[in-house]
Amino acid sequence: MRKPAFRQVFSLLIAMAVILNLTTIVAADEGMWPLSEIPKLNLQEKGLRIDPSLIYDPAKRSLLYAVVQIGATGSFISEEGLIITNHHVAFGSVQAVSTPERDYLKNGFLAKSRAEEIPAPGRTARITESFQDVSAEVLSVAKKNMSYVDRTRAIEKKIKKIVAEAEKANPGKRAEVAEMFPGKTYWLFLYTVLRDIRLVYVPPLAIGNFGGEEDNWMWPRHTGDFALMRAYVGPDGSPAEYNEKNVPFKPKTYLKINPLGTEKGDFVFLLGYPGRTYRHLPASYIAYEQNIRMPAVADWYEWQIKLMEEMSQTSREVALKHDSRIKGLANTMKNYRGKLAGLKRLNYLEQKRQEERALQEFIQADPKRQAAYDQVLARLDKIYDDMGSEFPRIFILDNLRRSVTPLQIALTVVEASIERQKPDLERNAAYMDRNFNRLKQRIGLTLSSSFYLPTDMAIFKELMKRSLALDENQRIKELNRLVMPDKNLDDWLVEFFNSTKMADPEFVKSLWDKKPDEIKKIEDPMIKLALALYPEYKKIEETNRARKGQLDELQAKLVDVRQEFLGQQFIPDANGTLRLTYGRVEGYEPRDAVYYKPFTTVQGIVEKTTGQEPFNTPAALLQLINQRKFGRYVNPSLDQVSVCLLYSTDTTGGNSGSPIINARGELVGVNFDRAWEATINDFTWNHRFSRSIGVDIRYVLWILKEFAGANNILEEIGIK
Amino acid sequence: MRKPAFRQVFSLLIAMAVILNLTTIVAADEGMWPLSEIPKLNLQEKGLRIDPSLIYDPAKRSLLYAVVQIGATGSFISEEGLIITNHHVAFGSVQAVSTPERDYLKNGFLAKSRAEEIPAPGRTARITESFQDVSAEVLSVAKKNMSYVDRTRAIEKKIKKIVAEAEKANPGKRAEVAEMFPGKTYWLFLYTVLRDIRLVYVPPLAIGNFGGEEDNWMWPRHTGDFALMRAYVGPDGSPAEYNEKNVPFKPKTYLKINPLGTEKGDFVFLLGYPGRTYRHLPASYIAYEQNIRMPAVADWYEWQIKLMEEMSQTSREVALKHDSRIKGLANTMKNYRGKLAGLKRLNYLEQKRQEERALQEFIQADPKRQAAYDQVLARLDKIYDDMGSEFPRIFILDNLRRSVTPLQIALTVVEASIERQKPDLERNAAYMDRNFNRLKQRIGLTLSSSFYLPTDMAIFKELMKRSLALDENQRIKELNRLVMPDKNLDDWLVEFFNSTKMADPEFVKSLWDKKPDEIKKIEDPMIKLALALYPEYKKIEETNRARKGQLDELQAKLVDVRQEFLGQQFIPDANGTLRLTYGRVEGYEPRDAVYYKPFTTVQGIVEKTTGQEPFNTPAALLQLINQRKFGRYVNPSLDQVSVCLLYSTDTTGGNSGSPIINARGELVGVNFDRAWEATINDFTWNHRFSRSIGVDIRYVLWILKEFAGANNILEEIGIK
Repeated sequence: MRKPAFRQVFSLLIAMAVILNLTTIVAADEGMWPLSEIPKLNLQEKGLRIDPSLIYDPAKRSLLYAVVQIGATGSFISEEGLIITNHHVAFGSVQAVSTPERDYLKNGFLAKSRAEEIPAPGRTARITESFQDVSAEVLSVAKKNMSYVDRTRAIEKKIKKIVAEAEKANPGKRAEVAEMFPGKTYWLFLYTVLRDIRLVYVPPLAIGNFGGEEDNWMWPRHTGDFALMRAYVGPDGSPAEYNEKNVPFKPKTYLKINPLGTEKGDFVFLLGYPGRTYRHLPASYIAYEQNIRMPAVADWYEWQIKLMEEMSQTSREVALKHDSRIKGLANTMKNYRGKLAGLKRLNYLEQKRQEERALQEFIQADPKRQAAYDQVLARLDKIYDDMGSEFPRIFILDNLRRSVTPLQIALTVVEASIERQKPDLERNAAYMDRNFNRLKQRIGLTLSSSFYLPTDMAIFKELMKRSLALDENQRIKELNRLVMPDKNLDDWLVEFFNSTKMADPEFVKSLWDKKPDEIKKIEDPMIKLALALYPEYKKIEETNRARKGQLDELQAKLVDVRQEFLGQQFIPDANGTLRLTYGRVEGYEPRDAVYYKPFTTVQGIVEKTTGQEPFNTPAALLQLINQRKFGRYVNPSLDQVSVCLLYSTDTTGGNSGSPIINARGELVGVNFDRAWEATINDFTWNHRFSRSIGVDIRYVLWILKEFAGANNILEEIGIK
Repeated sequence: MRKPAFRQVFSLLIAMAVILNLTTIVAADEGMWPLSEIPKLNLQEKGLRIDPSLIYDPAKRSLLYAVVQIGATGSFISEEGLIITNHHVAFGSVQAVSTPERDYLKNGFLAKSRAEEIPAPGRTARITESFQDVSAEVLSVAKKNMSYVDRTRAIEKKIKKIVAEAEKANPGKRAEVAEMFPGKTYWLFLYTVLRDIRLVYVPPLAIGNFGGEEDNWMWPRHTGDFALMRAYVGPDGSPAEYNEKNVPFKPKTYLKINPLGTEKGDFVFLLGYPGRTYRHLPASYIAYEQNIRMPAVADWYEWQIKLMEEMSQTSREVALKHDSRIKGLANTMKNYRGKLAGLKRLNYLEQKRQEERALQEFIQADPKRQAAYDQVLARLDKIYDDMGSEFPRIFILDNLRRSVTPLQIALTVVEASIERQKPDLERNAAYMDRNFNRLKQRIGLTLSSSFYLPTDMAIFKELMKRSLALDENQRIKELNRLVMPDKNLDDWLVEFFNSTKMADPEFVKSLWDKKPDEIKKIEDPMIKLALALYPEYKKIEETNRARKGQLDELQAKLVDVRQEFLGQQFIPDANGTLRLTYGRVEGYEPRDAVYYKPFTTVQGIVEKTTGQEPFNTPAALLQLINQRKFGRYVNPSLDQVSVCLLYSTDTTGGNSGSPIINARGELVGVNFDRAWEATINDFTWNHRFSRSIGVDIRYVLWILKEFAGANNILEEIGIK
């Protein structure tokens, strides 16, 4: 089996490749760049071989228009609106249309024709059409002598107005104002929102989620984390809800696929919608996250996961209801644990504190700076300290609303009855006419796809117990006074949850247009509880509004003085808007004496396969591997089909599904994760550890061709 | 901190090194070679740069005489009898001389002068002086018509006679006959046994056992697993028990140290005393190990470890008593788990079975072969099947004797009273005059250093319960009938253990020369139990003797026919006698996309350090690393002191402490472990996975110089 002669030649080739790399080395840098920054990046010097304007130029059919926000990110790969994204991005939709009889989640799904494509309920795809700086306009309403609450309210209202005007001026488009630097810079984005999205191809769970939670955030990885969907529009070409008569959407541009994939050392870039990063926040924020919030949330999610796994023993139907919920909780839990390990590994809090000590000296060294910034850090510290002390109580209230579906619905009904009485622009955003339908739809979907009463009851009980364990003045009295002293808690819970109609979709539907007085008359114990708790949530909302007013002011100042101190311009933290990041295909050393290579192979699938979930590779796939039916999709340097790859881009949650694009602007893979050591990206980027993980386009094409027999799709995307 | 220019040059150097390696590649092969095989190995073609006769030539002061068996292996590194071995080999001795007040185990120990060296109670060091084939003589007593029991007995007796004659002819030497191929080849070894061994230098536990059980059997490794001892002899130069007037032993030869260490790709070889391998045994043996014995033992050891860890909470004194016991159990447990994973990874049982199916066809293809070998595999299968069915009961009896010290002592006392009545040559080996003192000494040492009554009581209770859970006809009735039906089990246990004097060293001493009748009169419940159980153990002994007679015959035949079938000559399995193994310094790929480099660095110690055991690096060491006080011991290709290294030799337990010797016959490290994927070595060797782990001589010297300030030692070994 060993081929020494071949191996020698091969080693020689590798050695030469290493030498060649020295002359063509490309840099990887920190940065989730707003597209307007592209001209400053000198991407061609770093390895790009096309004109950067082909990526972003509002006047051209540039690559920008091939990228969609679809939960996370996706991209068009045909002129007929075919979208490639991750299996885990499509997961919720696949779950929603699966039943024990038609278990697409487990078995996968292929539409052999357009007619067989399945509508993905509630799924939308947004395309960024344009953006412009509206900071001056937004900040014009913030007056010096305003209270912080009033300042926040004024800005909120102004933003709503800008949005309303923009949507009026651009019929059919959706407008959003994004905070780029909070308190400092605001951009108005215009989106096209496609509302009829259908499933085209989903691999079986054992491919699309191979390795499951065990491998999540980990390298080496062997997950075929991709799925195909298609966007449809009305016969006139404009966005529309699902309708049989709809036609495939024709994107302005789409990505060409390079079936040869990419190689170690290659320049690559991603476009996508990274969610949130926190790189400009102070050390006290890191301390709050590291010492208080993240450990508590990780433990609580672990508790919930165990609960749901137990409940899931009941039946496959019940398990299906929990799948998506568990996946979400586990993902966050492991991400937080990774971040906590990373913060410790880099001793990041201490680094931040050292920087801030030096920054404070810099501030005090100059009277003008002192006047402007002296108390900035101290006031930020105070805010995060306060948040730390309030945390245990807020945490319970927050999770009551987030994780107990009937209570969530009752609170939404109560809030809707109040908010919907106000003029549209004065409502909380979710209750504005433009968003309210979406909210109702989401609640309906939760009830039909992931709600399971015994689970929510157990969560409710646990939160009640945790409230009782708080200091007496912190307890949520409205919650704990509910239980009759003469009743056993479990008996009471069953009665309480059985007598609410908040899990009855038809009844809930009948409440959306009720007025506050009508709501108060409803004899439903969950509504009564929601009415009792609602003032608590309003209080928190007001506290947050006041705090945001302060934070906006302080963070804006912190960014200003840090830029002056460090002598560099910052780019805004990720905020869910379209960004570009670049790097190269490269492995890394997670720890002393260990090197992670940048490509895994199908042989690794065989090695990991145990037959048990999540390592239960379909027999047909094992056979294809063992028979080496690799065709044109073999990675020549590995003599195997490569499955996943590593590259040094700067990504975070929301970049899932981002296209991995080569120097010539061609699709070579689909981003879906970061390495364990890169979970810390949200706080700081580090070239040694920050690696993103994608699925190799050769594996995608090989699965479509040899495993799924999806010739219709291959033909559509121009692959023979 | 990053130096791109330097890195580029460095990568270029590495790339060139890779190319150069192609022309100087050295092979690594399976094999723990008896030294008589060295001339056949063409070691100079494989990279050795000295005359092979310098390793082994009875007529010369060859390297052979620098190697000692000292628990596992050690080697002389000065003309004054200084021995280097592993920390974990010296562990038991360090534990035995440690107290909470003088905790050498925790804090380490350095003798600044000969006078400060501490005698290691019970420790001996053996030097192989010569060996010769005595197969014909041994097998001459095995007659055709003998029963299997008689055959085994006859061979046992003949061996004892050969040994007695050899010791008579070579006064002062110890003789042993080793089974090379069971039932086929027997060699007579002559040893010099040094009996006054003293501790010279032991690093603190946090260096010598850094990573503890967590890192055991693992790469990457950062353990300074070395210790220094010295052998003393009487003033006349002959072996003697400890005496103040003894003088350092002058070895025939010792290893010169190369302070520059070794590099990737270098040829290295080890000399040592590997314990046991099982490469020539049939598939049915692998099935027995994989499906029955190893899983049961691993689970049982895990249970014991948990128990001992709980008990150790009591005090540091109690913890010290358990340290060595836990270390031994954990080591075996993890080794078995590694083997089980490895057997699965390689699908080894199925491979073996396939080979045997082909072998059986080969046997049946020829009438002469058929006549000689037809039933060999079937009869072997039957034996291992029988062992599998008997296992649960034997396991309990075996562990009663092995893990419950007072019962172990009582059984030994009972057996001694019977065996010591027989003529010396007819006794079980342990009770022969030449061994009996050693046995008594070992029991005394167990009582003083590792016995803790509550632990043994809990183990006894658990084994009683397990006996009760057996099928009724399998139960150990002598055990379970002990408990009075009117007593609570725990109360009974306390009374039972409190009324035995088997843990009183003085009382035990008074029993060694008692006759069977005297023993029967002793009013001690543990002696009563031992007397009741003793016939059970005798029965097992006789069964084993009959089985060994059969196995010897069958295994010898299996080796013969497999050699014919495969067309190759085998070398005997490891059996605790001196062997050579060679390979080269090289990393490996434990799994897809992961490469383990062959050297770890002190920077890795910093990364692993948590401050908590077993990652609690001494502050002084961290400081030396952070200040880069590396002196001449830096590994130039890493710009760090390297700590441990990997190489592709063929090793097993007993090779611990083996010198890692370079192509010029110089010491460049000390072997102490195998990688997780190499635990399978005991069954089969595999170039992809079989890597041994050693501590780099540069780390040893750096610790001695900078951390321990052991200038007296460095001077003695000629290092400035």
